[in-house]
Amino acid sequence: MCRFLVYKGRNPILLSDLILNPTHSILTQSYDCRLRLDHRRPHNGDGFGVGYYTSPTLSLEPCIFTSTTPAWNCINLARIAKKTVSPLVFAHVRATTTGALSESNCHPFSFHSLMFMHNGHIAGFRSVKRRLVESLRDEYFLMVEGSTDSEWAFAVFLDTLHTMGYDPKLPRENGFGHTVLRQAILKTIERLNSFLDASGITEPSLLNFAATDGHSVICTRYVSSRTDEAASLYFSSGTRFHEYKPGGFYRMERHDRGQDLVMVASEPLTFERGDWVTVPTNSILTIHKQTVLIHPIVDKYYQENPSFVRSQGYAESLGMVGRGPGEAAEKVGKEKLVEEGRRLSEIVDVV
Amino acid sequence: MCRFLVYKGRNPILLSDLILNPTHSILTQSYDCRLRLDHRRPHNGDGFGVGYYTSPTLSLEPCIFTSTTPAWNCINLARIAKKTVSPLVFAHVRATTTGALSESNCHPFSFHSLMFMHNGHIAGFRSVKRRLVESLRDEYFLMVEGSTDSEWAFAVFLDTLHTMGYDPKLPRENGFGHTVLRQAILKTIERLNSFLDASGITEPSLLNFAATDGHSVICTRYVSSRTDEAASLYFSSGTRFHEYKPGGFYRMERHDRGQDLVMVASEPLTFERGDWVTVPTNSILTIHKQTVLIHPIVDKYYQENPSFVRSQGYAESLGMVGRGPGEAAEKVGKEKLVEEGRRLSEIVDVV
Amino acid sequence: MCRFLVYKGRNPILLSDLILNPTHSILTQSYDCRLRLDHRRPHNGDGFGVGYYTSPTLSLEPCIFTSTTPAWNCINLARIAKKTVSPLVFAHVRATTTGALSESNCHPFSFHSLMFMHNGHIAGFRSVKRRLVESLRDEYFLMVEGSTDSEWAFAVFLDTLHTMGYDPKLPRENGFGHTVLRQAILKTIERLNSFLDASGITEPSLLNFAATDGHSVICTRYVSSRTDEAASLYFSSGTRFHEYKPGGFYRMERHDRGQDLVMVASEPLTFERGDWVTVPTNSILTIHKQTVLIHPIVDKYYQENPSFVRSQGYAESLGMVGRGPGEAAEKVGKEKLVEEGRRLSEIVDVV
Amino acid sequence: MCRFLVYKGRNPILLSDLILNPTHSILTQSYDCRLRLDHRRPHNGDGFGVGYYTSPTLSLEPCIFTSTTPAWNCINLARIAKKTVSPLVFAHVRATTTGALSESNCHPFSFHSLMFMHNGHIAGFRSVKRRLVESLRDEYFLMVEGSTDSEWAFAVFLDTLHTMGYDPKLPRENGFGHTVLRQAILKTIERLNSFLDASGITEPSLLNFAATDGHSVICTRYVSSRTDEAASLYFSSGTRFHEYKPGGFYRMERHDRGQDLVMVASEPLTFERGDWVTVPTNSILTIHKQTVLIHPIVDKYYQENPSFVRSQGYAESLGMVGRGPGEAAEKVGKEKLVEEGRRLSEIVDVV
Repeated sequence: MCRFLVYKGRNPILLSDLILNPTHSILTQSYDCRLRLDHRRPHNGDGFGVGYYTSPTLSLEPCIFTSTTPAWNCINLARIAKKTVSPLVFAHVRATTTGALSESNCHPFSFHSLMFMHNGHIAGFRSVKRRLVESLRDEYFLMVEGSTDSEWAFAVFLDTLHTMGYDPKLPRENGFGHTVLRQAILKTIERLNSFLDASGITEPSLLNFAATDGHSVICTRYVSSRTDEAASLYFSSGTRFHEYKPGGFYRMERHDRGQDLVMVASEPLTFERGDWVTVPTNSILTIHKQTVLIHPIVDKYYQENPSFVRSQGYAESLGMVGRGPGEAAEKVGKEKLVEEGRRLSEIVDVV
Repeated sequence: MCRFLVYKGRNPILLSDLILNPTHSILTQSYDCRLRLDHRRPHNGDGFGVGYYTSPTLSLEPCIFTSTTPAWNCINLARIAKKTVSPLVFAHVRATTTGALSESNCHPFSFHSLMFMHNGHIAGFRSVKRRLVESLRDEYFLMVEGSTDSEWAFAVFLDTLHTMGYDPKLPRENGFGHTVLRQAILKTIERLNSFLDASGITEPSLLNFAATDGHSVICTRYVSSRTDEAASLYFSSGTRFHEYKPGGFYRMERHDRGQDLVMVASEPLTFERGDWVTVPTNSILTIHKQTVLIHPIVDKYYQENPSFVRSQGYAESLGMVGRGPGEAAEKVGKEKLVEEGRRLSEIVDVV
Repeated sequence: MCRFLVYKGRNPILLSDLILNPTHSILTQSYDCRLRLDHRRPHNGDGFGVGYYTSPTLSLEPCIFTSTTPAWNCINLARIAKKTVSPLVFAHVRATTTGALSESNCHPFSFHSLMFMHNGHIAGFRSVKRRLVESLRDEYFLMVEGSTDSEWAFAVFLDTLHTMGYDPKLPRENGFGHTVLRQAILKTIERLNSFLDASGITEPSLLNFAATDGHSVICTRYVSSRTDEAASLYFSSGTRFHEYKPGGFYRMERHDRGQDLVMVASEPLTFERGDWVTVPTNSILTIHKQTVLIHPIVDKYYQENPSFVRSQGYAESLGMVGRGPGEAAEKVGKEKLVEEGRRLSEIVDVV
Repeated sequence: MCRFLVYKGRNPILLSDLILNPTHSILTQSYDCRLRLDHRRPHNGDGFGVGYYTSPTLSLEPCIFTSTTPAWNCINLARIAKKTVSPLVFAHVRATTTGALSESNCHPFSFHSLMFMHNGHIAGFRSVKRRLVESLRDEYFLMVEGSTDSEWAFAVFLDTLHTMGYDPKLPRENGFGHTVLRQAILKTIERLNSFLDASGITEPSLLNFAATDGHSVICTRYVSSRTDEAASLYFSSGTRFHEYKPGGFYRMERHDRGQDLVMVASEPLTFERGDWVTVPTNSILTIHKQTVLIHPIVDKYYQENPSFVRSQGYAESLGMVGRGPGEAAEKVGKEKLVEEGRRLSEIVDVV
């Protein structure tokens, strides 16, 4: 039930235009029940994180802000988001049914210039963990501070990059290159699948990853199953993402054919049907200089039959399916949002 | 959208039987959206508190445990609740649309042997605050640490008790007596109404209070309106509250005519229709030695017409109406709860 | 025992060069006992705050980051400080013997474009509070969220500015002007003294304030006594503040006669004797375009005799005296600092 | 620089008599610089924990309360300690130079009926970790949630107990027996030493452990060196530990020859010279039914020469030496403590 969000733009965006303001921002997604499919569980209130690159003259490494306070209550997040701009932002809200609430468990994770986050889970992780741990170089084995499957997946990613000849500790001015990152993510999935196979785990894993070196961004939408649907993933691109009507009504503008910014998100940030495109299941999305590339991930879980409809049941049962903009707008009653917003702000400290 | 809960028993109860385990415990209430009427707002994730009396030989004062961590994430709450028993317990989960997240703002509030909590709000509090503040003795004016209308209502209650000749700093071995506490709460409401009138506030205030001196408990269900409904309030009494089926299925047993325990709650803790009784709007409930008394609050907001149906709209718009056990069971599909419970525990760290 | 720090420069500084790195940074000050005069009390571990102005095109208001985590444990502070630059920074570490640990109680406080912090205390505050509260306009009375004397002093400052004809809610592009701010601070002290007199408080108050509108900065070093010394305050100015030797050894460089940056601090950030100047007791320091002006505060606590030596006893008993750079260097053994630093970093998780 | 404390009594003690009130309680130890030998580092402000057994009819498992708030600021700790009694208590304040501040890293650790804490460090832990991890059964490998060497040492202890034929998941009504626990701790040290040897670590490890099954308590004072001194450890036993003079002046009373309670602590809780005995280096202390047994740990680090004086330098450099009661009393000026205490409480919110 976690949600993540990626922004990559030619120009910096004010974080609040991404995280706080849109009607269906990553904050709202987590607690507005009309939008959530899973009504039984607590919310994405188990910590959050934002990672963003600042000017390269300051640092090649991202700035990470994480907290175990629910995002909607974090006054520092609200203050910082209103005063910070960045051309490349990762944001994540976390929900968990097991595992400790701890800053060490908040995404995005980072290592030198690299940043990583995960929406999903490694099935049967307790059975897989020792194999995974033993496969790592010492430095990535020792890097892990928390207790999530996601941080260990990040360790596998770094170790894989290292094996490919790219030391993650040595950032390059123009990054590692999108081809290298894409290969590293694909091999990470391959390694995870091999651990799952060796441990006899047959329950599908949901592996929506996002990784970046500060230049290119790689996102996957992946499930280790031929018949089940993956966790949801959408993207949007255009010239300008702006508030066309007060109250959080944002829209993507598109001028010419050029793209100035790309967003990828577990759920659309707005209810504009035309603005969001579904990323196909078991594919890998690359953002390189604001250009979006999508490749299928062709392995044993690849569905060759284009008309096959994967079952949503499993991903839904884990709360991993976000509503598309059309369905969500219908559910919420888009026209009424402004009024509701006004109503709320008039109430003083309702207990 | 806050929720509160009172337990008063001849015998101590293990806190987890009250707070953690029941299918519709105060924890679950806050985040299970099928039970919530207000789907737009965040949850009761803005802190919580538990107050309980221990052996009188240890102290006449309650032990208070509060936290700004959402109750469902507070590992200390879970640990303590499993190892602590008490014959008189207050519990509160907080939701707020304004005001800081701060331990100082968590209920229950306490002062020497007295404990107090509030579910509702004082309408137009910013307009009323100065009058309220100026009416207080210095010691209660100086006592307030946080920024909630509820803590200031507690200060009015203490000041009122003082005016009646009972110094709140001087606990008595058998308490102040239920008549005194009841009068003090009624006069507190009277004073709040006079501030509201003087400030020209016409929007209704929702004043569900719970107060105790460690012996008697007083609860109100009150709205300063002749036509609107108050925030919901239920009670249950019997001989034994116990889990008759694994998975959090609790039921109230009743042997003979005696009552051994009483619970009062913003929402029923279980789906057993026969176990929960609605407290009438604008009335005051007294628990004295496990006996429940209910008196109407007869003032200008009293409805003499017994067949008049108050409008739920206002309380609902503030998220202050909990579903009764029948309606809630229907919504949740009571039979399926055990299975769902099992499902959840099998999932490892779903992100 | 709080400590504060102000930076105002022609050019932005990286926050970590101010807050984290210097050998005697505001973080180190709080816990290195060789530098502390008061050895009995806990440390400045009761929360901290940083406020900084970003580009005026983003906002005229400062960005505030506060936390109740001790500054030395706040991983977000370390991350943000390394990636954030600003030309005007306030920082504060808090220690308190009473009053709740709460984000609402952390300095700096802000209101629109204005920022404020306090090192010291209002003597007999409980006796003074009601007079103070009653003297305020509603909007400043209602603004206060926490329970510190300092936040109420800020409310008096805002109210005073308002009375002078400057609405704090209406920031001006070039600020309110240093003359206006200076007058407002002086009148704030006057008002506080009048409350103290009316309440018959004779114990001295320590009123080291820092206030800014994003353009000019005003700092006071003040005690309401003719014979006692105020809490310590130092300043340093020059062309460049930089690390001349690895290990946190910073020095102020001075080229020509121009000043490019000014720092004001409860304690010097370095052990360079020539870099820090003591601000005289009961005077007001103004930074306007990197120029420093110091005026005496001439009221009934003014000491006309220039050779009179005020007693340090009172300020010391409250932990309000920081060692000057010479004395501190002697105490610490400056030469050994680098080695110690290295030693520490080699130790893994000493429990 | 961590500190720990064990209480085992025939009768329950009020936690505040142990943790909050004594002049040199575990809270005060951490921040009173006159008592600390290491003046350079931050304090034991990196979280704390208390573990205590309640009535066996409630549970055979201890109740654990941990927090990352500095102990002196934790209002919940103060409230709970004043209302909770227990016959067997562990308490720990944590200081760390590396590693995240996280509840998962707070001691004491527990597993079913067993409780464990550590004062010291495993030298070169990063080099040793993989060997340690690989030596564990899956269940103890998977149990570890945090990132401290201490929690991994606990996992080795549990695994060792399991190897000895005692499943830690199956508590016994009268515990595992002091002989079993003592053997398990000794073998744990043996295993840790073998990992250190295999990794070529020659720097000494400081292994002061405390372990209990709710019945017997085992404590070690140990260093993996023949010439260096271990971290300090003291014990005290008698009939009654009580406050003989207001202001936190506690003393151990001894009637007859019987012992009703035993305390073991990194530093004495009082300045009474006659009340505290030093535990010899490299020995193991057993508390069984209030009887104290001390055995030497005879391995390659055992010093046969009784007049050999181990060097304090290493332990001191790590902040692991507490002052004995005599030296501490001298340093503090015991007579003046009451007055100072009074002074402090009069000061309102010194910032």
